[in-house]
Amino acid sequence: MRSTRFAALTAGAALAASCAPSVVSTAQPAADWRPVPAVGAVEPSDTVKNAPASAWRDVDPNNLLIMELKNGAKIAIELAPQFAPVHVANIRAFARAGWWNNATIYRVQDNYVVQWGNGDAENPLPPGVVKTPPAEYDRPLAGLQVRPLYYPDAYAPKVGHVDGWPVGYDPASGRAWLTHCYAHVGVGRDLAPDTGTGGELYAVIGHAPRHLDLNIATVGRVLEGFDKLTSIQRGTEALGFIKDPANHVPIARIRVAADMPAAERPAFEVMRSDSEAFSAYVLGRANRGGTFFNRPAGGVDLCNVNVPVRRKP
Amino acid sequence: MRSTRFAALTAGAALAASCAPSVVSTAQPAADWRPVPAVGAVEPSDTVKNAPASAWRDVDPNNLLIMELKNGAKIAIELAPQFAPVHVANIRAFARAGWWNNATIYRVQDNYVVQWGNGDAENPLPPGVVKTPPAEYDRPLAGLQVRPLYYPDAYAPKVGHVDGWPVGYDPASGRAWLTHCYAHVGVGRDLAPDTGTGGELYAVIGHAPRHLDLNIATVGRVLEGFDKLTSIQRGTEALGFIKDPANHVPIARIRVAADMPAAERPAFEVMRSDSEAFSAYVLGRANRGGTFFNRPAGGVDLCNVNVPVRRKP
Repeated sequence: MRSTRFAALTAGAALAASCAPSVVSTAQPAADWRPVPAVGAVEPSDTVKNAPASAWRDVDPNNLLIMELKNGAKIAIELAPQFAPVHVANIRAFARAGWWNNATIYRVQDNYVVQWGNGDAENPLPPGVVKTPPAEYDRPLAGLQVRPLYYPDAYAPKVGHVDGWPVGYDPASGRAWLTHCYAHVGVGRDLAPDTGTGGELYAVIGHAPRHLDLNIATVGRVLEGFDKLTSIQRGTEALGFIKDPANHVPIARIRVAADMPAAERPAFEVMRSDSEAFSAYVLGRANRGGTFFNRPAGGVDLCNVNVPVRRKP
Repeated sequence: MRSTRFAALTAGAALAASCAPSVVSTAQPAADWRPVPAVGAVEPSDTVKNAPASAWRDVDPNNLLIMELKNGAKIAIELAPQFAPVHVANIRAFARAGWWNNATIYRVQDNYVVQWGNGDAENPLPPGVVKTPPAEYDRPLAGLQVRPLYYPDAYAPKVGHVDGWPVGYDPASGRAWLTHCYAHVGVGRDLAPDTGTGGELYAVIGHAPRHLDLNIATVGRVLEGFDKLTSIQRGTEALGFIKDPANHVPIARIRVAADMPAAERPAFEVMRSDSEAFSAYVLGRANRGGTFFNRPAGGVDLCNVNVPVRRKP
């Protein structure tokens, strides 16, 4: 009785030579994504499969958090110290002090965020944690190698990728920031001028709430195991807080991968956004072809690029 | 031990007079969303609360599907016959024939779709169902009253709202289409030129996969109860198919609300996108203020507008 319909929705296949031109008719800068190549463009999944080793960068185990739930689920999070160095240093210090051992996930708001912590506003902080970090909501554009994404964006003057991270940036002000895409992790905070310590974290489980960009410190993204967080029952209180503490989801511990025994430590790699493979991948994401798609969009928004990540072979 | 941090993230509060100008510096058409009003702009939740009765339209019970899972969960879906009339008529015929009684949810792919059905490709179709509907992937722009959204979009020349539905449109070609936003429902299909009957449906559970626009018939959106679908365990097979049929989530039935006894029938209303309240709401979504936001974005993307819906008072 089970249909196989729709199975082709994401199935990989070579971009057909007959791909129609984009429906996006607004003027765009002449760049590597136009014109749509009629022949030889590659399905994104094939680009990932065939990318050379040089198209990948290792995830530094010092920037890798491994979150373990008491139900056995493991979630891997890459931290982005280049965007929020003080918050990321705090998060490492929290992990090394065992701050989240026996913490819980206590908020799940549909189409918004899942949030966990252990009361950083009420409890004494571990040694090495800066209580009031600076507002690391953006940083200088200088020093970053941006691979521009040449499609329009509703939130930022320019968007693109840096080291596999989706960013917004503004050449006029010379600032850049890590965006709130699906699976991205940010630092819960109280009202301004508080920036949060990093002890309370959230991850985006719905359509990208980009209005949070530049208003919160964004510190990383989930690389693996996110389905274990996104499938948690939504909280029924206002803002998705889970009413009964008995229904909070217990965390066993969160560790920095560098501190784990080598045999236990997972290793990941992320596609380099300065690689040719990445440009081909973006082109394929913006111009889906194969046997399923009839009308490639001719564009892709920043949070639908989905930067490739994989276990290190 | 529970922190209240981050609770303010979506809390309503009046837009502060000190809101900074937008970071979006690209040229935009002069329209109702600029300049950002320095004083008196309203928090979106307050706009919804204070909207007059005339700012709402009833959901026609003939366009309302009520899906009941065997676990007791109820999900309300509004259908959009103005965008896919043959598919919507099929869906009503399937419901009235009891097609989905004892069907299942058999696919949940993280950051993509949840999908359900009962084998429309293999089984005899009920009377009144058109086996090969036309490709209702877009329709004439003529006849639609579009409320434009004046922010850049990566997928369509223009975007906006029609009767509370987010749409893409192209004045040059004179075509318009219902988009793939969060909670939107589309028709599973095989490869072209098949368009699917409407017997297999999916809903978007992640960041809007707008590359599906113009490639599939989009027929509606979930109005209530979506958290019961988004929190289902993701399938572990390729494309999120759930391997063990014992883990498929059983559906009890799907009915057209118009066919339900009046006492059982829920009633909803959706904010009219041609109302002043909606324009104020969009303005507020694009310029979040209150005590939490320091830097309003000055823009909002189509699928982050979140058209207000509520139970009819």
